[in-house]
Amino acid sequence: MSADGFKAVSENFSHRVQENPYGPNPADYLSNVGDFQLIESTLREGEQFANAFFSTETKIEIAKALDDFGVDYIELTSPVASEQSRLDCEAICKLGLKAKILTHIRCHMDDARVAVETGVDGVDVVIGTSQFLRQYSHGKDMNYIAQSAIEVIEYVKSKGIEIRFSSEDSFRSDLVDLLNIYRTVDKIGVNRVGIADTVGCANPRQVYELVRTLKSVVNCDIECHFHNDTGCAIANAYTALEAGAKLIDVSVLGIGERNGITPLGGLMARMIAADRDYVLSKYKVHKIRDLENLVAEAVQVNIPFNNPITGFCAFTHKAGIHAKAILANPSTYEILSPSDFGLTRYIHFANRLTGWNAIKSRVDQLNLHLTDAQCKEVTEKIKKLGDVRQLNIDDVDSIIKDFHSDLSTPLVKPTSNGLPKVPHVLEGLDESEEKRTKTE
Amino acid sequence: MSADGFKAVSENFSHRVQENPYGPNPADYLSNVGDFQLIESTLREGEQFANAFFSTETKIEIAKALDDFGVDYIELTSPVASEQSRLDCEAICKLGLKAKILTHIRCHMDDARVAVETGVDGVDVVIGTSQFLRQYSHGKDMNYIAQSAIEVIEYVKSKGIEIRFSSEDSFRSDLVDLLNIYRTVDKIGVNRVGIADTVGCANPRQVYELVRTLKSVVNCDIECHFHNDTGCAIANAYTALEAGAKLIDVSVLGIGERNGITPLGGLMARMIAADRDYVLSKYKVHKIRDLENLVAEAVQVNIPFNNPITGFCAFTHKAGIHAKAILANPSTYEILSPSDFGLTRYIHFANRLTGWNAIKSRVDQLNLHLTDAQCKEVTEKIKKLGDVRQLNIDDVDSIIKDFHSDLSTPLVKPTSNGLPKVPHVLEGLDESEEKRTKTE
Repeated sequence: MSADGFKAVSENFSHRVQENPYGPNPADYLSNVGDFQLIESTLREGEQFANAFFSTETKIEIAKALDDFGVDYIELTSPVASEQSRLDCEAICKLGLKAKILTHIRCHMDDARVAVETGVDGVDVVIGTSQFLRQYSHGKDMNYIAQSAIEVIEYVKSKGIEIRFSSEDSFRSDLVDLLNIYRTVDKIGVNRVGIADTVGCANPRQVYELVRTLKSVVNCDIECHFHNDTGCAIANAYTALEAGAKLIDVSVLGIGERNGITPLGGLMARMIAADRDYVLSKYKVHKIRDLENLVAEAVQVNIPFNNPITGFCAFTHKAGIHAKAILANPSTYEILSPSDFGLTRYIHFANRLTGWNAIKSRVDQLNLHLTDAQCKEVTEKIKKLGDVRQLNIDDVDSIIKDFHSDLSTPLVKPTSNGLPKVPHVLEGLDESEEKRTKTE
Repeated sequence: MSADGFKAVSENFSHRVQENPYGPNPADYLSNVGDFQLIESTLREGEQFANAFFSTETKIEIAKALDDFGVDYIELTSPVASEQSRLDCEAICKLGLKAKILTHIRCHMDDARVAVETGVDGVDVVIGTSQFLRQYSHGKDMNYIAQSAIEVIEYVKSKGIEIRFSSEDSFRSDLVDLLNIYRTVDKIGVNRVGIADTVGCANPRQVYELVRTLKSVVNCDIECHFHNDTGCAIANAYTALEAGAKLIDVSVLGIGERNGITPLGGLMARMIAADRDYVLSKYKVHKIRDLENLVAEAVQVNIPFNNPITGFCAFTHKAGIHAKAILANPSTYEILSPSDFGLTRYIHFANRLTGWNAIKSRVDQLNLHLTDAQCKEVTEKIKKLGDVRQLNIDDVDSIIKDFHSDLSTPLVKPTSNGLPKVPHVLEGLDESEEKRTKTE
């Protein structure tokens, strides 16, 4: 079979302009991909994480760091959860942060009365609407739910602060029930309605459909909350914004009930790929690593090795063909720029998958001079040793230097003393990075 | 505002049957959500993970474990990567596994000639088609790519083994170029065409559209490969299946270039929620934990604390209202059943967010007898201590026992000696679990 026909057709299109295919989809005219807000819930959902015990001082430190990062809202544990929870809520309200402070309560007047006295800027009300929760949790029917919601909403509004009404387990709730209650509370005048994938199992196209449908029923903003049990929390958040949701609940590292919710850092990775200008104009993404380290230490977990952005190898390129292209233009294999996050790119060349382009680049860094043919020859030697055992940078440097010395002074073996101190990887590696690479 | 109108409308719908809203969408008539296959690439993509160095013995151990799990294909590093890579490929082909063995090569006759001699069941061919890769990697135009593809495909087919042709960085490739080359190779008769999100940034609705479009152009199966840089690899894989893709590339824990690809375990969580019967009929999901531990040890990483299924807290419930409902019916807050994976559920009740239902359940486990009112009273004591410091199970048990003793013999303080040994959490916890909980 000939490829001539293929050539003729394809050349007609070769002049087409290449746009950013990851930007907001122009067909989504309700999209908020370039105009979203964050409700940061490390101090509410995050407190439901198995390991979390936040002292007042830790809560304040986290709240200040989140505020500095630029989150729009900070959500706190219900003041009725315990006496100290109430006191901490009051203390954080008094910090004078730029972010608005919210607290999260059951749809109940007892809770609402305590919440409005704490000094919060708004109250997030939630009630289970699924058959499961109606049967096994609060045991109320939709009519009772609607009546409670109306009472609580009107009370909170009368205090002049923001109010959000959310269903719980929205994706297992009856659609007509949901739309009915959302329309009811929208008419009373809530600031936001919330959709919650409480069990963590909605999929992106389901999310798109529900948000689009809800968008046609209410005038207020839509907030979304996604658990990550089946690994879709970031994608669901993105798709919700495409459909017209405005606010996403996140927590640092995604900590929360079970394996948690949409992580702040992972969502930033997703959003910066879609609308870098918007994200960089609002959020200090270079603070993500510090923020994650702060929370990870508070709840005694390690940053996952495969975490978006801050996983120790998120910007490490290893295969020979990847390394070659990255050296020519980082955009070939990177949609995120590590420098946006105050991080560095690494070319991992000390292994059997390495290629001669990566090795040539290393030769240049060592201030040695080898022809392309010689680089290919020394690359073969490196790959051979890489077949036998795991290599480190010193191994590769030794091979290169020995090879170079043999070329220059074939009869005299040099020692490694007196050679210039060289960095460990191609594009720099500070000491703390090096430690992480080795320990994780 | 009255809720009467709401009541009338909602009751009309209250008899509706509640189906599994996470099953395949009936509108997706091309969906393979209930009929997919796995191409397991821990020994190819996974070898490109920064920490990976697999000895021959480790490769064989991993291949056997994957085969036992039930993966459909096992993909291996190119035999031209290094001499040992070629020998390992031959060794794994000789194991007589049920899974078909593939190797992954560049679209080049030199590579193809070596690959077909290793004894593999099929060859996965890949070439970069994006403007970036054409310019900075191989420097070839689409016509050259088509000609190389035809030559390699016809050669591999002539050897009687399977052949897949994949573009690289498909989502930044020109759509018409892509469809042209896929149609060309489909006509020659490849087994599969592959779509690869090499930079890890496609979003679910983009994936759906591209797969649906491609499905209308080719007759062969469609395979998809998603990197996880922006956290969408699991969701993209699911959405690709909805659109009619048949095969998904995975690796254990998602290990691969940078922060990796769709993880095997995470995808299983996603798929079991959609079609539990299909997943359980094909794959030994109760082996996921062992498989992940095997690979994690080989590449020296920890299982991420928030990993789907096997993260140490994936089935831990903490907030009072969650615990109450879970005790009544686990489905209220769980879409996955821990027993499917050989794991156990935990109710975390030793904290200030606890509720009296969880404490009552603990009281029952301790074989003590308290009224509901007494349970509420002791819960308040526990929450008060939980405000002061992080609690453990012994703290809670001591409070309950003291409270109980005070009721029975108010003037005599009992010692804790001689009390029955009780498990540490509500629904059992074996020793290895306990250790993981404490160390992660």
